[in-house]
Amino acid sequence: MTRKLHLNAFLMGVGHHEAAWRHPRTEPARLTDVRHYQELARIAERGTLDSVFLADGVALRGNVKHNALGGLEPLTLLSALAAVTDHIGLIATVSTTYNEPFHVARKFASLDHISGGRAGWNIVTSAGEAEARNFGVERPPHAARYARASEFLEVVRKLWDSWEDDAIVRDRAGGLYADTGKIHPIEHAGEHFAVGGPLNVSRPPQGHPLLVQAGSSEDGKEFAARHAEAVFTAQQTLEEAQEFYTDLKGRLAAYGRRHDELLVLPGISPITGSTEREALRLEKELEDLLIPAYGLAQLANMTGIELTEDALDGPLPDVSVETEGAQSRRRLVVDLARREHLTVRQLIARLAGGRGHRVLAGTPEQIADQLQEWFFNGAADGFNIMPPILPGGLSDFVDHVVPELRSRGLFRYEYEGRTLRGNYGLARPRSRYARPEAVVAG
Amino acid sequence: MTRKLHLNAFLMGVGHHEAAWRHPRTEPARLTDVRHYQELARIAERGTLDSVFLADGVALRGNVKHNALGGLEPLTLLSALAAVTDHIGLIATVSTTYNEPFHVARKFASLDHISGGRAGWNIVTSAGEAEARNFGVERPPHAARYARASEFLEVVRKLWDSWEDDAIVRDRAGGLYADTGKIHPIEHAGEHFAVGGPLNVSRPPQGHPLLVQAGSSEDGKEFAARHAEAVFTAQQTLEEAQEFYTDLKGRLAAYGRRHDELLVLPGISPITGSTEREALRLEKELEDLLIPAYGLAQLANMTGIELTEDALDGPLPDVSVETEGAQSRRRLVVDLARREHLTVRQLIARLAGGRGHRVLAGTPEQIADQLQEWFFNGAADGFNIMPPILPGGLSDFVDHVVPELRSRGLFRYEYEGRTLRGNYGLARPRSRYARPEAVVAG
Repeated sequence: MTRKLHLNAFLMGVGHHEAAWRHPRTEPARLTDVRHYQELARIAERGTLDSVFLADGVALRGNVKHNALGGLEPLTLLSALAAVTDHIGLIATVSTTYNEPFHVARKFASLDHISGGRAGWNIVTSAGEAEARNFGVERPPHAARYARASEFLEVVRKLWDSWEDDAIVRDRAGGLYADTGKIHPIEHAGEHFAVGGPLNVSRPPQGHPLLVQAGSSEDGKEFAARHAEAVFTAQQTLEEAQEFYTDLKGRLAAYGRRHDELLVLPGISPITGSTEREALRLEKELEDLLIPAYGLAQLANMTGIELTEDALDGPLPDVSVETEGAQSRRRLVVDLARREHLTVRQLIARLAGGRGHRVLAGTPEQIADQLQEWFFNGAADGFNIMPPILPGGLSDFVDHVVPELRSRGLFRYEYEGRTLRGNYGLARPRSRYARPEAVVAG
Repeated sequence: MTRKLHLNAFLMGVGHHEAAWRHPRTEPARLTDVRHYQELARIAERGTLDSVFLADGVALRGNVKHNALGGLEPLTLLSALAAVTDHIGLIATVSTTYNEPFHVARKFASLDHISGGRAGWNIVTSAGEAEARNFGVERPPHAARYARASEFLEVVRKLWDSWEDDAIVRDRAGGLYADTGKIHPIEHAGEHFAVGGPLNVSRPPQGHPLLVQAGSSEDGKEFAARHAEAVFTAQQTLEEAQEFYTDLKGRLAAYGRRHDELLVLPGISPITGSTEREALRLEKELEDLLIPAYGLAQLANMTGIELTEDALDGPLPDVSVETEGAQSRRRLVVDLARREHLTVRQLIARLAGGRGHRVLAGTPEQIADQLQEWFFNGAADGFNIMPPILPGGLSDFVDHVVPELRSRGLFRYEYEGRTLRGNYGLARPRSRYARPEAVVAG
């Protein structure tokens, strides 16, 4: 079988561009309207995309004065999307820092049942100060968050395995509902968690919902190599993307994993036009709607570099790019500004489209060329699509770029798998508690 | 306006009767099938019921060897029901003991947005030992759980209020999305919680999702009087129900609340037949499918009274009925056995239908008579309907008992409110942070 691209639609309010809510092609009143997200999921499914994805944080982040913030909690929303779709994967972000593994295992198991095997979990560790303040704790250090996350994953996987696939007997005549010898207490007792189990939901259709991760720090990459099956990442140049791809894939063997057991999906914000001029016009329209104060605040959030409006038309001041912990995005931004000799105003415009992810403005052919180049040159197994405006930017991509990718043989015409895991080409894990001789249920 | 009944459908797997999964009118394979629950919600909506409700616990409770346990997490499930219904209220149980107020406030706010104002929260404090073991803690004492619950509620309400109703300005031309003077940090610092806020979801359509409670202990009643807007309760006789109703309503004034600000909804398990004989036949069929070992285990769970199969045909042994903490159900069960001179076998059969809730087997007229009697005599504002088998028992109720209640002028023909709160006849709370002169949004 020819290697095919995998495409995820990253859904964010009325678009990824900071000024999306001000653009005439969006309706910001739909930010908390479930029908908006249902429409997006249906568009993505029309394009046979692998999955839709919702980011998350457990605090009001960013400046709501100038941007449409305050949307819906991802897991709650994804069930409502499951109800109106049949094939598309549903990936929600949930933090391991302010949650309990029992709840998280159970919610994803439930979503996996509700969606018939389409659930995925983007694992984050919640770096923010405002997030810590909503849970009455000091912000835990980077390494401590990742140590907790790793044990959290271990517990969640045990819970997903706690009902073997054939535990439910359902013998009505004999009065035997389940073979309790195949439902296992997990009796986990670790540094961070003590969890008895078993889970109170039967085994998810996928065995384990898909595990996704997006940290690019050293701890993040090691965590991904150990646990993740898909990785979202921000990469600006082919060389950097290749380096990241090679680095991450190279770490898999240490955990007994093959190269194809983890997919690397760089983010791109496609600004699609039927001509290049049309695409650039849309990009310019969005740029003209930017609010400098908001962009400067975002720059500070992303990099820690705090500037005033006086600095807009000069170069980015000299700053250290030591990547400490979660600050890998800082290096990306500083490198981008230096490489392209951007003023601060130009830099914040570049970041406005994708918060450090790559913005591709052009015709469907030009965008497909870029994706193809990265895909064929060891930089990507697929892409995380971050449309600048929603739903318009997603339907532009699905209706114009996807057909181009299909005609080049790079992307599917129809769904092939029955589950998210199946569409991503990943195996269904068997329960760790199943006896070796047992046959694994399909 | 004439006083009307309120009816909630309590959804539980394939039925409330312990042997429901063995009865030919159920399909136990649908326990984790979202379409089963969607069908139930649609049936309830066809009957213009106020709401559907899902109980919950955060451990596998009961004996899965002999009963269909291990269903879906309620909040995850309710979004999927919201997506296929328009009017019916959606009430999920969530514990205050093993959760964080920020998450709970946010999930219910999200469900309220997703459903257009139909979310309700049944507040529980998780008494179980197995539940504590899934979170690595000792089971907290009764009073401590209620103290935490009360502060938890306070925090959640502050978070729901943290965005004033008119905080979102959405001025696209001016670049002003929200009036940040109307989005408030809550800065809660109490005995159990420190939460900065604001919430990262805008104010729920109902202001506050409906607050429901079901504890009947002294702490439980006091908590209900202070916080709850609907109370589910198990009452076997008119006299006991009247006593509970009067007691609870009498506690409201101390919290500055009116009698009609809290609805009392006793549970009933209706076994409906077109003749009395048909109803009794269904009851007998279910009884014949009971597994004594399961019934004895349930009796032990419910009352702490542990018996073996040798005891089945004798009377219930003498036991203390001091109601300590959460053990109010123990008194109800012991009183029932003594009042009706039941053998243990008869007692577990009586409990099998509704776990201590009242079982009413009869024609639609006979069932309506019973509901009417309690409704007119100070024992109930409505009922929590617990069908023995699902979906059949719910459609029997909706298609036969509901029309009888309507023709007696006791129940609505059409939804009148636009929200759950509206249908229950309850006011929309305004934000505590709104300035006194501000007009409250509808």
